[in-house]
Amino acid sequence: MAHDILILGAGPAGLAAGIYAGRGNMDTVIFERTAVGGQISLTNDVENYPGFPNGVGGQELADLFLKQAEKFGAGLVNQAVNEISKSDHIFRVSGSRGQWEGKSLIFACGADPRRLEIPGEKEFTGRGVSYCATCDGFFFRGKHVMVVGGGDAALEEGLFLTRFAETVTIVHRRDRLRASKILQNRAFKNEKISFRWDTVLIQICGDNTVTYVKAKNVKTEQVEEIPIDGVFVFVGHIPNTGLVKNLVEMDEQGLIRVNESMQSSLPGLFACGDCRSGTVRQMVQAAGDGATAAIGAIKYVDSL
Amino acid sequence: MAHDILILGAGPAGLAAGIYAGRGNMDTVIFERTAVGGQISLTNDVENYPGFPNGVGGQELADLFLKQAEKFGAGLVNQAVNEISKSDHIFRVSGSRGQWEGKSLIFACGADPRRLEIPGEKEFTGRGVSYCATCDGFFFRGKHVMVVGGGDAALEEGLFLTRFAETVTIVHRRDRLRASKILQNRAFKNEKISFRWDTVLIQICGDNTVTYVKAKNVKTEQVEEIPIDGVFVFVGHIPNTGLVKNLVEMDEQGLIRVNESMQSSLPGLFACGDCRSGTVRQMVQAAGDGATAAIGAIKYVDSL
Repeated sequence: MAHDILILGAGPAGLAAGIYAGRGNMDTVIFERTAVGGQISLTNDVENYPGFPNGVGGQELADLFLKQAEKFGAGLVNQAVNEISKSDHIFRVSGSRGQWEGKSLIFACGADPRRLEIPGEKEFTGRGVSYCATCDGFFFRGKHVMVVGGGDAALEEGLFLTRFAETVTIVHRRDRLRASKILQNRAFKNEKISFRWDTVLIQICGDNTVTYVKAKNVKTEQVEEIPIDGVFVFVGHIPNTGLVKNLVEMDEQGLIRVNESMQSSLPGLFACGDCRSGTVRQMVQAAGDGATAAIGAIKYVDSL
Repeated sequence: MAHDILILGAGPAGLAAGIYAGRGNMDTVIFERTAVGGQISLTNDVENYPGFPNGVGGQELADLFLKQAEKFGAGLVNQAVNEISKSDHIFRVSGSRGQWEGKSLIFACGADPRRLEIPGEKEFTGRGVSYCATCDGFFFRGKHVMVVGGGDAALEEGLFLTRFAETVTIVHRRDRLRASKILQNRAFKNEKISFRWDTVLIQICGDNTVTYVKAKNVKTEQVEEIPIDGVFVFVGHIPNTGLVKNLVEMDEQGLIRVNESMQSSLPGLFACGDCRSGTVRQMVQAAGDGATAAIGAIKYVDSL
């Protein structure tokens, strides 16, 4: 007997979908390959999820979401899913622990920020290394920060960071930017922003938090130590959408296109959170997406 | 000197926008004509806002949102806004306490469910009378409920309620439904659903909670008392969008059309929550909308 709703991913989007699906009296299973919480579980202190004025730990908040989903009857299965297919109106999900069937599927597997893959990066994530200016800019008031990247995101986030930081140094591996001309002009005019061209970071260093980086000029090969309080990395995202790439329409970044009910181009398959197109990558938006996707999936299952 | 962002409405959408705008270091003012919280403040127990597995009072949750917005510097002004205009890239908002100027405007004034306007309706709201099956269906497991209305919403929500209730009686003032044929067929086939045609409710009665209604047949004028545990009213919504009706594009229901950044057809004017087109009218979605609108407004102001 097929379940009503299968949810892939137990980050904020998937768990919020689980809360709404469970509370909607749907037979619901949530799959998660690693730890519950997704990106948010890596965050020490979430200050911007509405409802927690004193902040809340990322893992703690993820656990609250899970508890709420389980309270309403959504079950969690720890398994990595290897394959998704649909035939005769039934979705099939296969993984290390077997096969499950569902009448609808909510895909909420997120996206990972592309990392620099250099020593110190992982170690200092959340302690000076960040992949989200909206989330962490606030913590760098009066500080000196570095932005790595040369596209629109790097300049937009760099400009946003000038609201907080004393200086923003944009480090780019080439001698020109990929970003749109209008953003470039805005960045060039901003007194707080300076550029280091032809430069890559090779190590992030510090004690408790970041204090300096080692940077290499790719033309001269010269290595320099630069004192800095924070490193914001904007070199793209890797959507975790490989499993559905032959099933649904995606945008040029590999994010799943959805309508306002979060339904993809494949009827019955919904996508929500960071893996869908057009998101601002914020926890509360992912949670709202999840609720919307679950409401859509309930209507879809009711219509079968 | 114009403020960066003016926010109209202090429900979940407006307050979430306030949190993000304030934390984005924007000079932000929130206007509210009545009490903080919007629709949610009328709800005793919110079970489906992710992060509160034991539920939370609606007013309590609204107060947490407000505290968080104020912590990040957003100011609240209690005033009814009478007029909104835009000229020379500046929004002007006038009300009982004066005029404010802003570089951008986030409109979050919500929508009110259309009420029956009969005795007992207001008194029993939250105690048997509901305007949201997704929110309250869960509380009517094994109970007998009534749905008032004859459109798509009435049938969709009525079908959803069959997941919980023992019986669902659809009360409609005419002898045929406005709802789409496919929904009608689904409702007619559902064993839990029955219909009372040519009927209007004239009073909702009970003790602590609803126990019966007085219903009148509009053809025979006969009045009957019908025992019932809950009354779900789906006779439309009234969007609070009159103030911007000459400024932005709206859909046929008077809801504001927005793009994925929640920006309306008028640059710099964002709309979020229940007053924008295509919403599922859930608190967490409104909050996600508010965050998205604030991020959009910050980018807009930065680009001026």
